[in-house]
Amino acid sequence: MGIIKLKNRVCVSAVASVAGRKEYDGCFGDRFDEYGKDDTFGQKTFEDAEAEMQRRCFAHALRKGGFAEGDIDAIFAGDLMNQCTASSYGLLKYDIPYLGLFGACSTMAEAVLLAALTVDGGYFRRAAAAVSSHNCTAERQFRMPIEYGGQRTPTAQWTVTGAGCAVIDGGASGMYIKEVLPGRTVDLGVKDAANMGAAMAPAAADTLERYFAGSGKKPSDIDVILTGDLGSEGHSILTELLSMDGYDTAASHLDCGMLLYRPEQDVHSGGSGCACSALGLAVYLYDRFMKKEIKNALFVGTGALMSPMAVAQGHSIPGVAHLIYFSSEV
Amino acid sequence: MGIIKLKNRVCVSAVASVAGRKEYDGCFGDRFDEYGKDDTFGQKTFEDAEAEMQRRCFAHALRKGGFAEGDIDAIFAGDLMNQCTASSYGLLKYDIPYLGLFGACSTMAEAVLLAALTVDGGYFRRAAAAVSSHNCTAERQFRMPIEYGGQRTPTAQWTVTGAGCAVIDGGASGMYIKEVLPGRTVDLGVKDAANMGAAMAPAAADTLERYFAGSGKKPSDIDVILTGDLGSEGHSILTELLSMDGYDTAASHLDCGMLLYRPEQDVHSGGSGCACSALGLAVYLYDRFMKKEIKNALFVGTGALMSPMAVAQGHSIPGVAHLIYFSSEV
Repeated sequence: MGIIKLKNRVCVSAVASVAGRKEYDGCFGDRFDEYGKDDTFGQKTFEDAEAEMQRRCFAHALRKGGFAEGDIDAIFAGDLMNQCTASSYGLLKYDIPYLGLFGACSTMAEAVLLAALTVDGGYFRRAAAAVSSHNCTAERQFRMPIEYGGQRTPTAQWTVTGAGCAVIDGGASGMYIKEVLPGRTVDLGVKDAANMGAAMAPAAADTLERYFAGSGKKPSDIDVILTGDLGSEGHSILTELLSMDGYDTAASHLDCGMLLYRPEQDVHSGGSGCACSALGLAVYLYDRFMKKEIKNALFVGTGALMSPMAVAQGHSIPGVAHLIYFSSEV
Repeated sequence: MGIIKLKNRVCVSAVASVAGRKEYDGCFGDRFDEYGKDDTFGQKTFEDAEAEMQRRCFAHALRKGGFAEGDIDAIFAGDLMNQCTASSYGLLKYDIPYLGLFGACSTMAEAVLLAALTVDGGYFRRAAAAVSSHNCTAERQFRMPIEYGGQRTPTAQWTVTGAGCAVIDGGASGMYIKEVLPGRTVDLGVKDAANMGAAMAPAAADTLERYFAGSGKKPSDIDVILTGDLGSEGHSILTELLSMDGYDTAASHLDCGMLLYRPEQDVHSGGSGCACSALGLAVYLYDRFMKKEIKNALFVGTGALMSPMAVAQGHSIPGVAHLIYFSSEV
């Protein structure tokens, strides 16, 4: 069993985004619902700052969609922090059923996928997908103490500071979820925690090739193929992997990690983190659908299931990629 | 929106369990599909041992259900290790769509809930719920280096070494999933990482009271109310909380954390961890349905969304509890 076709009308009825200062200074600065001047969001720790971003982002989503708390039947949420505390603490004040996910940087796509299926099936009237990441919580957890100031390699990515939320229901918005394809874990042996793009690209290729084979669609049938956070390194690896199997995605493949920052912002291979794809979805893809610039898109959330302990114990880093097919038509 | 009633026939079609030595020496030793004499399962690290338990447990589930790998459309999986690596590494060899969850010790119930909804909706023909925990990976991550040998408080629980798997499909087994109720996060201020029962009991009370109020059922209508890992401390708190609101669960409330070990095994308040409720489901509850000893049950997976960093930064521990209503009748 592969691609799952939704049976009913299911749309992205509202999106919201909160971002950090560097992201505000990037390419989409004017599009975020809110940004933090110093990335602390009034909190004493970076962990609390990330939780606060989730809280504010979810509040923006409610406001923008015109929803009360009781209108949301479930939240699918996750983040990169150990035990996903940005989500559980950030959304704690909301009395809404909470389903925690861990899909690393693919969590937004996983959350949208599960929200779409459960809304399509009539189990929830309306569900939210909510994720976050923060450069200062992720870097010290996964790589170096941030004060250390270690030199970053060319393949390194920059964990995006931000939170994204998408509300999924049966309304009419101009951005509909038609099909989903959950990803399989793929591990081709990458052990470099500073090269997540290489760890994730094979999983993205696996999912995209299964999608093209199963749907009969060609890359040229899709206006935008938007991967989550492969960065320029992973983007070129994915392009090569797909090309070897006869799929030319050059005309339509964009990566959220390559869209968010300006070249002079020195993020090396690009952005990463749960918020990378979530901001790409909320401010780039959603906008293009609303402006009727595109008629369809594949959103491929990419995750490197990377654990510092597992890497220290000699393991390589598995990747996973979940796919959503969006269309402007019901 | 509260209780979700399933529309189609959805059953637990196979279960499997792998356990550690202490669990084998406990009350259900003869019922596990496999146990580890020294809890290493032939691996060099405890983390790899836990992943190996997941792999073996899933293999047992396939074997016992008579399923090939291609018969399972998705795995919902999670564990307690940072980045849930026991699940991602343990299940890596299976080319099955992988949806990672983080629900702390409630993960088995969350996985069964999502597997049930996605199978009921016809999105997956058959889905698996797979979780694990290992005393030696959890204790050193959440509390003390295990070599330290710190004295355990009376309210402390013992993280269960084991893995559990349930395969959910539309077959006929004698153990059907009729209703589910996802939990909300509840935080009443408990900050003691050695008292998880107190942190989780309010969430269990919230979910059970919503279930009783929404379904119109009384506790006496249910043969077994099986909570995940409240232990004796959390069990008594839950009993008191429910009693204050007029629900007397004394006759039917059992807790997996109090069932697994013998009194002389010195686990203090009881077992805990993802595997605690998973083993309770796989070897206790499933058996009772198969033997036709009970006609219905509420399975309430309880999770303490506890992070050592969050506790160190002064936060209390939120709990969550997801509920499944099982029946012997379709």
